[in-house]
Amino acid sequence: MQDKDYMRMAVKEAVKAQGMTWTNPLVGAVIVKDGQVLATGYHHQYGREHAEVNALLHLTKFEEARGATLYVTLEPCSHYGKQPPCCKKVAAAGIKRVIIGQVDPHEVVGGKGIKYLNEHNVETEVIGGTEYLNEAYNFFYRQQRPLVTMKYAMSLDGKLNEAGNKRTMLTGEAAQDDVQQLRLRNQAILVGANTVRVDDPLLTVRIRPLPQLPIRIVLTRDANRLDLTKKIFKTPGPIWLLSQTELTERHEENVRCFTAEKWTPAKIVQLLTDHNLQSLLVEGGSNVQAQFIAAALADEVVAYIAPTLLGGSALPVAMGQEASQKVHYQVCDVQTLGPDVRLRARRE
Amino acid sequence: MQDKDYMRMAVKEAVKAQGMTWTNPLVGAVIVKDGQVLATGYHHQYGREHAEVNALLHLTKFEEARGATLYVTLEPCSHYGKQPPCCKKVAAAGIKRVIIGQVDPHEVVGGKGIKYLNEHNVETEVIGGTEYLNEAYNFFYRQQRPLVTMKYAMSLDGKLNEAGNKRTMLTGEAAQDDVQQLRLRNQAILVGANTVRVDDPLLTVRIRPLPQLPIRIVLTRDANRLDLTKKIFKTPGPIWLLSQTELTERHEENVRCFTAEKWTPAKIVQLLTDHNLQSLLVEGGSNVQAQFIAAALADEVVAYIAPTLLGGSALPVAMGQEASQKVHYQVCDVQTLGPDVRLRARRE
Repeated sequence: MQDKDYMRMAVKEAVKAQGMTWTNPLVGAVIVKDGQVLATGYHHQYGREHAEVNALLHLTKFEEARGATLYVTLEPCSHYGKQPPCCKKVAAAGIKRVIIGQVDPHEVVGGKGIKYLNEHNVETEVIGGTEYLNEAYNFFYRQQRPLVTMKYAMSLDGKLNEAGNKRTMLTGEAAQDDVQQLRLRNQAILVGANTVRVDDPLLTVRIRPLPQLPIRIVLTRDANRLDLTKKIFKTPGPIWLLSQTELTERHEENVRCFTAEKWTPAKIVQLLTDHNLQSLLVEGGSNVQAQFIAAALADEVVAYIAPTLLGGSALPVAMGQEASQKVHYQVCDVQTLGPDVRLRARRE
Repeated sequence: MQDKDYMRMAVKEAVKAQGMTWTNPLVGAVIVKDGQVLATGYHHQYGREHAEVNALLHLTKFEEARGATLYVTLEPCSHYGKQPPCCKKVAAAGIKRVIIGQVDPHEVVGGKGIKYLNEHNVETEVIGGTEYLNEAYNFFYRQQRPLVTMKYAMSLDGKLNEAGNKRTMLTGEAAQDDVQQLRLRNQAILVGANTVRVDDPLLTVRIRPLPQLPIRIVLTRDANRLDLTKKIFKTPGPIWLLSQTELTERHEENVRCFTAEKWTPAKIVQLLTDHNLQSLLVEGGSNVQAQFIAAALADEVVAYIAPTLLGGSALPVAMGQEASQKVHYQVCDVQTLGPDVRLRARRE
C-alpha cells in the first residue's frame, strides 16, 4: 500500500460523517506502522473529538502511536476551539510522520498545524487529493462567502413546470434520491415564495437524522402573505424568511424573519456569510434562478434533465426581467440516474 | 469468427456510403467460404449496383461464389427498380446460404427476397442487429411518414440565444462537427424564417460532396419577405419555401415555393411523405420547436448542451403559444463532445 492508498482509506472514514460536522469540515485519519493499519478514525460530529484523536482512541494500546505514521485528510488543527489542538496531541503521542491531504484554508490553522508538528520533530508531507471532501468549507475560507449551488430539474426543452402555476414531477426516484445527497452537503436551501406556493416542497433531508438541519430560506415580498399550511411550515428545522416587510404574523419558534428593501442575491449571500454559513443550495424557482445568474452568483450548477418535452407554454428555467449575462462553466460530471441525466458544471 | 462478426464487417462496408444512397438504404455485404472472407461490398450510391452485387463483383473469380455464405445487412431485393433484383443474382451465383441483418420493411420487398431465395435452394437466416443503419428508412416504410429529429443547442438553463434577435454561438467545434453528421443522415432540414433572419445559417453538409443535397426548408408567413442576401440563398442545394402567400419574387432555380393557409407540422410532414422524403431534421428556432412538440411530431431529440448560463432575458428552447403537451422520451445516448454534452432521446 502506498501513501495515496492509506489516504483513500482516510477519505472513506471522513465521509461517514457527511452532514454531521458543520460548521467543521469532514476529516478522516488512519494510523499505520510497519505496513500495518493500527487504527482509523473520523470526526463524527461538531463538538466531538477530531479525526486524529478519534483514531488515537481506537489504538489497542496508546503506546502503539510511537513511531507510527498518521494519514489525515486535513491539516491537524493548531488552535483551541471546542477541542484542544490536535497537533499537540499528535506530537505528544509520538507520531513520527504525518501525511496530510490538504492544508487547512481556515486562517486560524492555515499551516500553523504543520509548523507546530515540524517544530516538535514530527515530519510532515502534504500530498493533496482530498480537497473535494470539503468544497464548501474550502470555498468559504478562500472566497469569504458561501459556495452557491444552483439546482434544478428540467425537461429536455429546458422547462421546470408545465405552466407557471402547475407543479410537474419531472424526474424519477434516483434523481430525487440524489437531491437528498445534495441537500445533505448544503447548510442552507433557498426557494422563492412562488415555489412554496406552487410546488409546496419539504426541502428536508430524509437520509439520516442530522444534528443541525439545513436552514430553509424563503425569499418573499411579504412574509405575512405566506400560506402557513404549506409543508415547509409543518416540518422541523430552521426557516428564514427574507421579506421586504416586517413579519407580524405569529410563527413557530423555528421561523425567523429578516427584512430588507430589496433582497438581491449579493445581499442574501452576505447575510449567510455573516452567519458563518458555508454553502447555499438555490432550488428555484425560475425567477430566483434568473436573479442568481444575473448576479453571477451561481458557482456550481446541478441540472437534472428528464426525458420529457413540455413545450411552448411551459415555464422555462431562469426566466426574469434581469439582464442576460453569459457566464461560462465547465462540465465536471455527467451521470445517468434511472431515466434521467444529471449534469454538474462549475464556474470557470 | 461468428455470424455476428461477419455481419459487423458488412455494417462497416454499408456506412461507407453515408449520405450517398438516398432514397435507398445503406447496405453492406460480405462473402465468406471455409472461414475465409472472399469479397466485401456495399451500395455506393443511388442508381448504382446493390451491395450483394458489388460484393460479387469483387470476387477474384465469379465461380468462387458457389457454395459460399453471403452476409448482407438488409434482405436482398426482389423487384426491378433501377437495378435488377439481387435475390436472382445471388441464387444464380450459387450462394448456398444468406445471413440477413434485417427484413426489408419496404412493402415491395418485405420477405419476398427471402421467399425467392428459399424457393431457389438458398438457405436464409435473419439475425438482426443492423436496423440502426437505416433508422429513417425503416421508420418511413413502417409509419408511412418521415422520421422527425429535433435538434438544438442550448445553454445549461435551456436557452437558444442571448435574446430573440441575437445569434449566440453556444457549442464548440466537436458539437458543430457532430451536427454535420446529423445533417448527413437527413434528407430535409427545416428552419423558421426568424432563424434565417437572426442566425443566417448555411444548413449545408460540408463533410463530403453528396449526389443529392438535403432539402433546406424555410417556414415563413410570406416568402416574398425573405432576405435574398442570406447565406442559404447563396449556397447550392434545393430550397423549399413553405409560405402562406404565393411567391412573386424571382428566385434561383433551386428554390421552390409551396403555399398553404397554415403550415402545421402535420401538413409539413405530409408534404415530405408525398415527396418520398424519409427524414426531417428540425433545426429551429424556438417557435418552430414549440409547434412540433405541440403536434407530438418530434420522434427523436438531439440536444447539445453548452456549459453556459444565459439567464432570464435569453430566448428559451420551444417557446410559443401552443398548448403545452408532455411527451415522454427515453434517453438513448449521452456523450461529451469537447466542452459540450450531447443528449439523444427517442420517443417512447
